[in-house]
Amino acid sequence: MQTIAVERGRGEPAVLDRERPEPAAGEVLVRTLRVGVDGTDFEVIAGNHGEFPAGEDFLVLGHEAVGVVEDGGGTAFSAGDVVVPTLRRPPGGERNEFFERGESDMAPAGKYHERGIVGAHGYMSEYFVTDAEFLLEVPPALADVGFLVEPLSIAVKGVELATASRSSFTWEPESAAVLGNGSLGLLTLAYLKHVEGYDRLYCLGRRDRPDPTIEIIEELGATYVDSRETPVSEIPAAHEPIDLVFEATGYAKHAFETIDALAPNGVGALLGVPEPWEFEVDGGRLHRELVLHNKALVGSVNSRIQHFEAAAEALSAFPEWFLDRLVTGVYGVDEVAAAFEDDDTTIKTAVQFSEYEERR
Amino acid sequence: MQTIAVERGRGEPAVLDRERPEPAAGEVLVRTLRVGVDGTDFEVIAGNHGEFPAGEDFLVLGHEAVGVVEDGGGTAFSAGDVVVPTLRRPPGGERNEFFERGESDMAPAGKYHERGIVGAHGYMSEYFVTDAEFLLEVPPALADVGFLVEPLSIAVKGVELATASRSSFTWEPESAAVLGNGSLGLLTLAYLKHVEGYDRLYCLGRRDRPDPTIEIIEELGATYVDSRETPVSEIPAAHEPIDLVFEATGYAKHAFETIDALAPNGVGALLGVPEPWEFEVDGGRLHRELVLHNKALVGSVNSRIQHFEAAAEALSAFPEWFLDRLVTGVYGVDEVAAAFEDDDTTIKTAVQFSEYEERR
Repeated sequence: MQTIAVERGRGEPAVLDRERPEPAAGEVLVRTLRVGVDGTDFEVIAGNHGEFPAGEDFLVLGHEAVGVVEDGGGTAFSAGDVVVPTLRRPPGGERNEFFERGESDMAPAGKYHERGIVGAHGYMSEYFVTDAEFLLEVPPALADVGFLVEPLSIAVKGVELATASRSSFTWEPESAAVLGNGSLGLLTLAYLKHVEGYDRLYCLGRRDRPDPTIEIIEELGATYVDSRETPVSEIPAAHEPIDLVFEATGYAKHAFETIDALAPNGVGALLGVPEPWEFEVDGGRLHRELVLHNKALVGSVNSRIQHFEAAAEALSAFPEWFLDRLVTGVYGVDEVAAAFEDDDTTIKTAVQFSEYEERR
Repeated sequence: MQTIAVERGRGEPAVLDRERPEPAAGEVLVRTLRVGVDGTDFEVIAGNHGEFPAGEDFLVLGHEAVGVVEDGGGTAFSAGDVVVPTLRRPPGGERNEFFERGESDMAPAGKYHERGIVGAHGYMSEYFVTDAEFLLEVPPALADVGFLVEPLSIAVKGVELATASRSSFTWEPESAAVLGNGSLGLLTLAYLKHVEGYDRLYCLGRRDRPDPTIEIIEELGATYVDSRETPVSEIPAAHEPIDLVFEATGYAKHAFETIDALAPNGVGALLGVPEPWEFEVDGGRLHRELVLHNKALVGSVNSRIQHFEAAAEALSAFPEWFLDRLVTGVYGVDEVAAAFEDDDTTIKTAVQFSEYEERR
């Protein structure tokens, strides 16, 4: 079967032919429909993030998948179910306490593999197998866009952690700012509007109009903030102090500028993964500001199956126009280069491995 | 009656004679027993923090009080009740939403006065009056040490906010480090041991042995960490990664070094209030570390009456030796200079305004 993988020492995705996997007991065989492409894939391809499976010289890419069960293998899943897999797996199959309690997203480095990223093959292949516990059934209506469940689950978890940090007092947030107008930023913006019910939304980018992401931001009723004109720390002066800041840029200074952007009792959810970078901060003022206004910064990575569930539900609530405009391209396996192209007209792309045919 | 106040332009506390206050309807008249001295008082005296009441050229000091009700004024309080007052009051008597919901500790600047600190006279006087809603009855056994309820309530709130930030997943913290061996640090250490049940405790200071704070730290079963030898960021290498860091130094670099001291999924509660100070940080690495290990930093200021209640309960649970050794001096009004002295043998002092006599 066809897979899309990155080979050691090559800086680009390639189509490789591999054996179709055989499910073991308790495993489900899934026929892949679509797999999304995202920033982490580019990091993995460039060799900046992730690791190859032990003893292998290639890594099958892809961690945002939707598929159809081909063989339920005696589990609760039946052939024809539309499913989305989670990412993290116990390394060497040894379940640790984080997997035992269904919170693998809280496992530290070394206590998990991530399919398509760290130590385990991903989903960019015609078929994949997985333990049934790492699979979520989603409505057939999500067969086309179900590959967005995984990235949206990342937003769900980040917002959940941030909100939990404000749970020891009455917190009635009204304003939120998403830093970053990539696909994660836009998915988060739609989630904050359609599920979390924020009244006033802002989204930060550095693009000139006309731009498809700015159009989506404004169509969602949010205010576009051009960070070249209005730095993050200036958002309160230019607009208003922000109750929830969701950082999805990976630009390290944003983590610190977020403290200034927050309203009293506000929280910043940090999701980006920057490289080391030394710079000067007014650490005294930032520290004081965190304390005197009860502000918080909360880092968040990965997500667990409950976040996938909430994301699938949220996705079903998003307007059709949003998903249509967010997904700027779906490509066949023979169009790898196009699927992995990333220019100003690209928001979110996916590779299609097979067609979904509704059950009769 | 005698009061201890700071006058405009004078950098030291003075004894002033003032009229004994008359309680209005709904107000309670309290005869003051003891009022603690703490770091905030020194900031106020030096003119670095707080503000004088409108139209006044002096501020009565003191925000850590315990007293006895002299006249309940028709409220639920009766003469003889041992009571502790909270700090924050609605400015100009105008209750805003934070006071309405009993969460004045979450009010931003401008929405509160703080007795003895910001815009309202404190408790260092023979008598004070206060609205009954800002008064907590405590057991008569706390008549001597009830002035510790307020500082301990600050620790209770900080730990509560930090713990809340970890409430969206299973968090079973075992190790905690308190940065700072002042009275707040030591009270927090005792609280983490006797109430929160942490197994392994560390407390940071910069003192040589023999030292009374190090003795208390070790008597509490905690490990003393000399920050001159082991910087905060080196605690994991020297000891272990820490689940909860409680910063009570006001040293701005500690806020950032805390991120490195934390175990995965750990949280740092920031309580100190530093001055502006620019310095270099590896912001990229710190940001990445927060994200990839789901770490959090939570600022915390002030406390509300529920935290006072929890603090009074905690104080009753502390061993007697701890309180005896924490309170290094109780002075009369005629010994102001001694009460406000702060050297290496001083941990916590208080001024005594009257004696408690048990009800018959």
